[in-house]
Amino acid sequence: MNVLMQSDLSAIVEAVNLVWVLTVTFLIFFMHAGFAMLEAGQVRSKNVANQLTKNLLTWSVGVIVFFLVGAAISTIVGGVTGGGSYSVGGAFMDIWYPGESTAWVGWLFGAVFAMTAATIVSGAVAGRAKLRAYVTYTIVLAGVIYPVVVGFTWAGGFLSNFHDFAGGMIVHGMGGIAGLTAAWIIGPRMDRFNADGSVNVIPGHSLTFAVLGTLVLAFGWYGFNVGTAAAPLAMADDGSVTLGSFSYVGRVALTTTLAMGAGAIGAAALSMMKTGKVDTLYVANGLLAGLVGITSVTDAVVWPGALVIGLLAGAQLPIVFEFVEKRLNIDDVCAVFPVHGSAGVLGALLFPFFSVDGFTVGALVNQVVGVAVIALWTFAATAAVFTVLKSIGQARVTPEHERAGLDTSEHGVDTYPEFGKPDVAADGGIT
Amino acid sequence: MNVLMQSDLSAIVEAVNLVWVLTVTFLIFFMHAGFAMLEAGQVRSKNVANQLTKNLLTWSVGVIVFFLVGAAISTIVGGVTGGGSYSVGGAFMDIWYPGESTAWVGWLFGAVFAMTAATIVSGAVAGRAKLRAYVTYTIVLAGVIYPVVVGFTWAGGFLSNFHDFAGGMIVHGMGGIAGLTAAWIIGPRMDRFNADGSVNVIPGHSLTFAVLGTLVLAFGWYGFNVGTAAAPLAMADDGSVTLGSFSYVGRVALTTTLAMGAGAIGAAALSMMKTGKVDTLYVANGLLAGLVGITSVTDAVVWPGALVIGLLAGAQLPIVFEFVEKRLNIDDVCAVFPVHGSAGVLGALLFPFFSVDGFTVGALVNQVVGVAVIALWTFAATAAVFTVLKSIGQARVTPEHERAGLDTSEHGVDTYPEFGKPDVAADGGIT
Amino acid sequence: MNVLMQSDLSAIVEAVNLVWVLTVTFLIFFMHAGFAMLEAGQVRSKNVANQLTKNLLTWSVGVIVFFLVGAAISTIVGGVTGGGSYSVGGAFMDIWYPGESTAWVGWLFGAVFAMTAATIVSGAVAGRAKLRAYVTYTIVLAGVIYPVVVGFTWAGGFLSNFHDFAGGMIVHGMGGIAGLTAAWIIGPRMDRFNADGSVNVIPGHSLTFAVLGTLVLAFGWYGFNVGTAAAPLAMADDGSVTLGSFSYVGRVALTTTLAMGAGAIGAAALSMMKTGKVDTLYVANGLLAGLVGITSVTDAVVWPGALVIGLLAGAQLPIVFEFVEKRLNIDDVCAVFPVHGSAGVLGALLFPFFSVDGFTVGALVNQVVGVAVIALWTFAATAAVFTVLKSIGQARVTPEHERAGLDTSEHGVDTYPEFGKPDVAADGGIT
Repeated sequence: MNVLMQSDLSAIVEAVNLVWVLTVTFLIFFMHAGFAMLEAGQVRSKNVANQLTKNLLTWSVGVIVFFLVGAAISTIVGGVTGGGSYSVGGAFMDIWYPGESTAWVGWLFGAVFAMTAATIVSGAVAGRAKLRAYVTYTIVLAGVIYPVVVGFTWAGGFLSNFHDFAGGMIVHGMGGIAGLTAAWIIGPRMDRFNADGSVNVIPGHSLTFAVLGTLVLAFGWYGFNVGTAAAPLAMADDGSVTLGSFSYVGRVALTTTLAMGAGAIGAAALSMMKTGKVDTLYVANGLLAGLVGITSVTDAVVWPGALVIGLLAGAQLPIVFEFVEKRLNIDDVCAVFPVHGSAGVLGALLFPFFSVDGFTVGALVNQVVGVAVIALWTFAATAAVFTVLKSIGQARVTPEHERAGLDTSEHGVDTYPEFGKPDVAADGGIT
Repeated sequence: MNVLMQSDLSAIVEAVNLVWVLTVTFLIFFMHAGFAMLEAGQVRSKNVANQLTKNLLTWSVGVIVFFLVGAAISTIVGGVTGGGSYSVGGAFMDIWYPGESTAWVGWLFGAVFAMTAATIVSGAVAGRAKLRAYVTYTIVLAGVIYPVVVGFTWAGGFLSNFHDFAGGMIVHGMGGIAGLTAAWIIGPRMDRFNADGSVNVIPGHSLTFAVLGTLVLAFGWYGFNVGTAAAPLAMADDGSVTLGSFSYVGRVALTTTLAMGAGAIGAAALSMMKTGKVDTLYVANGLLAGLVGITSVTDAVVWPGALVIGLLAGAQLPIVFEFVEKRLNIDDVCAVFPVHGSAGVLGALLFPFFSVDGFTVGALVNQVVGVAVIALWTFAATAAVFTVLKSIGQARVTPEHERAGLDTSEHGVDTYPEFGKPDVAADGGIT
Repeated sequence: MNVLMQSDLSAIVEAVNLVWVLTVTFLIFFMHAGFAMLEAGQVRSKNVANQLTKNLLTWSVGVIVFFLVGAAISTIVGGVTGGGSYSVGGAFMDIWYPGESTAWVGWLFGAVFAMTAATIVSGAVAGRAKLRAYVTYTIVLAGVIYPVVVGFTWAGGFLSNFHDFAGGMIVHGMGGIAGLTAAWIIGPRMDRFNADGSVNVIPGHSLTFAVLGTLVLAFGWYGFNVGTAAAPLAMADDGSVTLGSFSYVGRVALTTTLAMGAGAIGAAALSMMKTGKVDTLYVANGLLAGLVGITSVTDAVVWPGALVIGLLAGAQLPIVFEFVEKRLNIDDVCAVFPVHGSAGVLGALLFPFFSVDGFTVGALVNQVVGVAVIALWTFAATAAVFTVLKSIGQARVTPEHERAGLDTSEHGVDTYPEFGKPDVAADGGIT
């Protein structure tokens, strides 16, 4: 018979929690493949490599910046605005040299959320933003803009009563608003709008890649939402072990699933009403909007509420997309605002009406304030960066380069050298 | 020193089991990306968006129907046909308002299996089925047809002695037979067969997407098979903890792997024998047929049996495909019957010959009866739905729409606007 | 109150470890989808199906050979060269009929590493190697060449002091060197080099698939590296439980992430210096080179070292690629040597300079010797196989077949029948 030590139980609890957090972190990382495919599919073939490169560099540059700077900024902003104790040097040292190396698992878990917010923006400014402008903005976002939002909220700042379970507003809403702002300042692709404000549609080059990206994102989203129930087990001070965040993990799994399905149905229904046909891209983006809508509240809504939030998040997509396009004349290439921005806002604001704890005015106020602060900060900071870039002529490529495509001008490559033009390869002639 | 409470151990067991079930559930969900790519690659470019939309809506509509109706139907059918006690109202309430929200994890685990069965059908009726016909069938399948099969078997019905570990027959065989039935009733694509019964091959538009889908499916299949060993730990009534289904998880991992490899080799060998060349699509589909073949028996066959079952499942693929095409003149576009149907039947029937428990006539009888009942029910129910749809003129699109492609007629989109025709986009002219 | 049995704790430890190992094994398996897409994207459209078939058969044939032969060879070579006790018959029986079927989980974990090494080679010999030559080599690699390397090192052989945590040299370096050797012996694709040694670039047919493959590989790589911390929990002889390999899992997660990002940045920077543009394929391959570079040392380097190793691994990529191409005139189609070979060597040799234990000459000697032995063995064995194949005229396809494309000559298929040539399908005419 064994004499059980406290340390045995602690080790088990820690191992189980680490297994889970690592697994979901990998799933969330894989969302970069989803974003890359979703965005690549929605741009023209002459700009595909540019979009892919931006996605690769978002992660590569952003994650290093978030390690060196961003994560610590979150802690500091949380301390400053939340009134908690903090130390500037300590905040950095906790990331760079934590007492236990397992702390780096927690850092990586935070990093994959940060990089999700970052990569959303690339879809809005596709086809004309300079690579160096985009990378510059990514550095600022990963180092400051997103960490400040986290500081306000999850890191204990003054919005800590804002209910956003997995980042429907903090990550997706923030990313969608940043994208819209950037697309507005940088201006539309050439010929996108006529002088009278009427619209020319520029279709993406591959619905197949776009839908592939959608399904990869949905897969990763299970990591994103269900994974935010990050500690399967909890150990109390007296050493007793209970289900930690897994006590509500079933609700997260269910409401995420129902809202995803309802989002696709809502967008399909709107598309059917408008045109009599079921637009494939609306269905795909509606599925994602349903996911965005539920993300902030997935742990704490009743499941009929998940169906309603999903349906509305999907149904608003075609409406908001057309509003941005036709009224605002903003060229949000990959529809990142209707998918991530307005759907994220919607979910956060609807929360009190479907909360498992019932409606309270206080909860609604918290949600409104939280959404407003995050939106304003994101808008202001993003506008500042792109205004500076624009003022020094670094925001977008030249018209010649835009016409030729960014693949050639920024990267010197041709994404599909054998399709749509004479075959130039030399290994035995034209097939 | 810690005083260990029973509750500590219970929490650990539950958390470990939940971590595992959630992880594999996500993998199985990801199979929808696999099916979407596999099927999209095997249809013509004018029908790709249609295929993708069907895949997105299969999940989106189906999973909600399965939550609201299907899961409870399984329980009721299991009770009715198995002689167990059940309550109609209770069966629904157990899904809608279970005592513990963690029960919803179990529901989602069941749902991803159900949706796998559903999505198989779309590959068989590609290129001519009306979207509304397909969605209608999906609703019936998710709400009734599949749940009845589960009721007969896993949910304790009269076929509970049928050995089908992870759904080689219950999920894949059922889906493959449903697909063949639907393709038969709905009729072939125009020009697929000549008046004399001879065959015109209509190649899919992208082998790359088809193979990508194959490998995504194989990845998810590890979740499907190994994940059906769903409870790593078991706690006995006296509180003692042992490996639960993980006591045989190594066999599942091994036999799944060997049968997958052998399936590809079997199909490659047949292809080589028939044409002197190794057809890529046969290799890919053979790999999948090997997986289907082993799925029902993966926990309980000796590993040489896994090699034999995989080889035969792969080798039967080209033969059955040609039989369906040339003899039956049924246009099973994505070969779902040879991959899922006949391979699923084969695996289930071969089980007794390679069982770790040795051959018994009783086991063979159980397998034959199980396969027969599932096949008959699936055929009859599917035939009924599509016959009704056909009789009211809603089963397939008009010849004009079929000729133009379903992407245009049903969805108003062009999957590849820059390839294969003049460039119509407006942002700076033709590249 | 529970009376805790030793067996309870043992079961929990085993279950947690199995959950983790299975999860990461599936992720590593998924790297085959990554390799398939990465390589398919980098070959011409007339050779895509050939590349995909090779990837499918690498896994399918290789994993069976590794089960029947390879795994046992590792054990035997480890025993022979390491001086430990071993039994030839026992080595095979331990794989075929282990006492506990859970042992097969460990076998599968080893197998996915072996198959990674195998599949790297296909990228180097793309576009001209005969399918039967490639499959023959795969059988030898899976049965002997790779198992011998594992025998020398991880299986307790005479290089057991060589530090290679997750296979940066043992898997990737080995695969990259094998690929270069094979490409050298088999000769370049026709028209790749002119008579004066100058170079014709043959661009791949789809950067989108190449980048998709890159991101799938990066996803799987978390399984590869972090998963090699394979035993979350350890149980001591006295029954006490502690974190096992998870005590350093945070370092692995961090350094893998930083080196990946730095690799992309290093390659992007070199590309920018050379041409003023950021080549997309260099960024993608640089990200992978960063991962390769850190793989051998990820558990035991300080994180600034991970940044340096990643940057250098990325930066060497364009330089080594051009050296192989322009100086050696070897046609390494998918750049497998600069990505896997030289980056793997680099990481292993830099280890002592960034070790958490500080620099020692002894550690450097171990690394140099280990790299040299693995490189020599891999080169010699690979050269022998391909020399034999070449001498009997079975190494590469005829010039006619190469010109027409291997898809037609080896597989009888057309990967993209609707793009780039007249539409030949029969279902309603040309769209």
